[in-house]
Amino acid sequence: MIYLDNAATTRPDEECVREALVYLGDAFYNPSALYKESFAAHKALEGARREILSLLSDGRGHTLVFTSCGSEADAQVLFSCARRGNFVTTAGEHAAVYSAAAELSRRGVEVRFAPIDRCGKVDEGALLRLVDEKTSLVSVIHVNNETGAVNDVAALARRVKQRNSRAYFHSDGVQAFGKLPFRLTDEIDFYTVSAHKIGGVRGAAALYKKKKATLYPLVYGGGQEGGLRSGTENTFAVMQFAAAAKKKFSSLSADLARVRGYNLYFRENLDAGLFSVLSAEDASPYILSVSAKGLRGEVLLHMLDDRGVMVGTGSACSSKSGVSRVILACGADEETAGGVLRISFSADTGEEECREAAAVINRCAAELAERTR
Amino acid sequence: MIYLDNAATTRPDEECVREALVYLGDAFYNPSALYKESFAAHKALEGARREILSLLSDGRGHTLVFTSCGSEADAQVLFSCARRGNFVTTAGEHAAVYSAAAELSRRGVEVRFAPIDRCGKVDEGALLRLVDEKTSLVSVIHVNNETGAVNDVAALARRVKQRNSRAYFHSDGVQAFGKLPFRLTDEIDFYTVSAHKIGGVRGAAALYKKKKATLYPLVYGGGQEGGLRSGTENTFAVMQFAAAAKKKFSSLSADLARVRGYNLYFRENLDAGLFSVLSAEDASPYILSVSAKGLRGEVLLHMLDDRGVMVGTGSACSSKSGVSRVILACGADEETAGGVLRISFSADTGEEECREAAAVINRCAAELAERTR
Repeated sequence: MIYLDNAATTRPDEECVREALVYLGDAFYNPSALYKESFAAHKALEGARREILSLLSDGRGHTLVFTSCGSEADAQVLFSCARRGNFVTTAGEHAAVYSAAAELSRRGVEVRFAPIDRCGKVDEGALLRLVDEKTSLVSVIHVNNETGAVNDVAALARRVKQRNSRAYFHSDGVQAFGKLPFRLTDEIDFYTVSAHKIGGVRGAAALYKKKKATLYPLVYGGGQEGGLRSGTENTFAVMQFAAAAKKKFSSLSADLARVRGYNLYFRENLDAGLFSVLSAEDASPYILSVSAKGLRGEVLLHMLDDRGVMVGTGSACSSKSGVSRVILACGADEETAGGVLRISFSADTGEEECREAAAVINRCAAELAERTR
Repeated sequence: MIYLDNAATTRPDEECVREALVYLGDAFYNPSALYKESFAAHKALEGARREILSLLSDGRGHTLVFTSCGSEADAQVLFSCARRGNFVTTAGEHAAVYSAAAELSRRGVEVRFAPIDRCGKVDEGALLRLVDEKTSLVSVIHVNNETGAVNDVAALARRVKQRNSRAYFHSDGVQAFGKLPFRLTDEIDFYTVSAHKIGGVRGAAALYKKKKATLYPLVYGGGQEGGLRSGTENTFAVMQFAAAAKKKFSSLSADLARVRGYNLYFRENLDAGLFSVLSAEDASPYILSVSAKGLRGEVLLHMLDDRGVMVGTGSACSSKSGVSRVILACGADEETAGGVLRISFSADTGEEECREAAAVINRCAAELAERTR
């Protein structure tokens, strides 16, 4: 089987799992208890926090809060920071932000969506024009999870602050973290990352938080995570996350170059008579969105699965709701949106796998076209 | 080392971990994706849901929502169901409910606390008198996490509904689940359980929910868990949880009898000149709260740790805030509350360990008394 749906989830790094298993065994203690064995677990957790923090920040301006998943981190920022005035975001957000925004709207917060271009990138001018003195929060996805479009969140954050210095700026960086070179800037107040998109296990995610930014809990209780996220700390998941993240960052440039090659290979070798590429050339190479216009992406996906190639159709998270909202927001017609395949790579994807997968995808699409046209 | 802090967390069941590891390996797929490998993960997850549901319910009246931890499940119920009118709870709740209640209060919901008796059990008459036509939610902990006091939540739920049939009834069952025989009744709308207190791993917990009860999400996004808890499903943690829970329930009665013996052994063999027992005789035998009045529980805990015995001092979750709020609510004076040790067992605790631990606890307390009195 060739797995090309790494934007949905990645295979956990085996070595990092093996190392972290001690936290499900001899080091299982509750980090908030008071004996020295639990304090050792607490110290390990704080080491993981420093490790992950250091990957995007020098630790002077930002701190790190562990959460159970990226969606939780996003929800925490939105419900915490967009309690009044208006909330400015984009039409290209992941469902975690998009659905939380819909809830904010139900609660009476005005939600303003900036349009995206045909590749999924936000219209920067339009976004900035939506920001006014009543804006409490701006949230812009860093790398679009369906098209790979990269938003320049550092520049956007700076310009947002120029328009309203009291507005908070958040970015969902789940598809950027460990994949694209990036450091947090002073103007980014919150930044969401998740373990399971980079070889980590589910159960761990993190929110980078400007030290001075005010954040409220979503989950209350024992006061873990500086009171910002209660619940017994998931040491196994966090330790495995830290190890996987460290590994990813240590080979980030080399991986990026290799994945660029894979991406290019697909762009050059997918049958141009059947597929159009939706992703921009400057998109994250880890995600390639293509459309076999007129074919049904889901049918194609199942054919590919039968021939040993796993890909996505838009975001796995919203895959049961039919055609992708984001692809439509890119201006695609229903037929194009209905034929979308999302091919997403990881650093572990092999070159030979890519060649084989591209050939299988071409063959299946041709067969399906034959059958249905 | 002898571990007697199982109310804080338990050692994950090794066999169940080993079996579930495939979900961090060859079966790592995102259960929401569309290829057959991910559908297999989805099916496994639904099997785990049915398994856990069946442990407390025949599945006719209730469903099950997976969350990341017990505190999250508690928060979801409180913020979802106590949006208006008043919220009735007890002075003996776990911090997950107690702190969320404080937040509700800040949001303008009237919070009413029923008093508890000297062993931590709620005053049922007082609780019922607090319920009126404006009560939106009542939450009563099933087994008090500090003293083991058992509240008859089935009877309470029935009587609450007699006073106000529209009020929802929730119970945090984290310390009861897999330990005491119990089935959900029709009048219990929500019931929180957690994996890591019964040999499960952290990252999985569940909320039993009356099918007809309205619940809102805390985390929004891809619509997993029937839209009630978004975020990629943590298959590893959930599958390990289901296996651990099944195992616990299969030996529940035998374990309970054995742990009763341990509890009794401590009651009979702890030095009565140094220790008074706070837990009621009909408390859950898994938790025994004692106080060495005049001694500092924390100092004693560290001495015990040095001699190879790990115990708690009240709830690990609130252990950094000094004296236990719950023990004070039991009517204990500061000196008694300051000397509390919480000894908590698991089915895996050995008889010999109990004998040895009791002797060590007596010796350490005597030494400390010698030094400090």
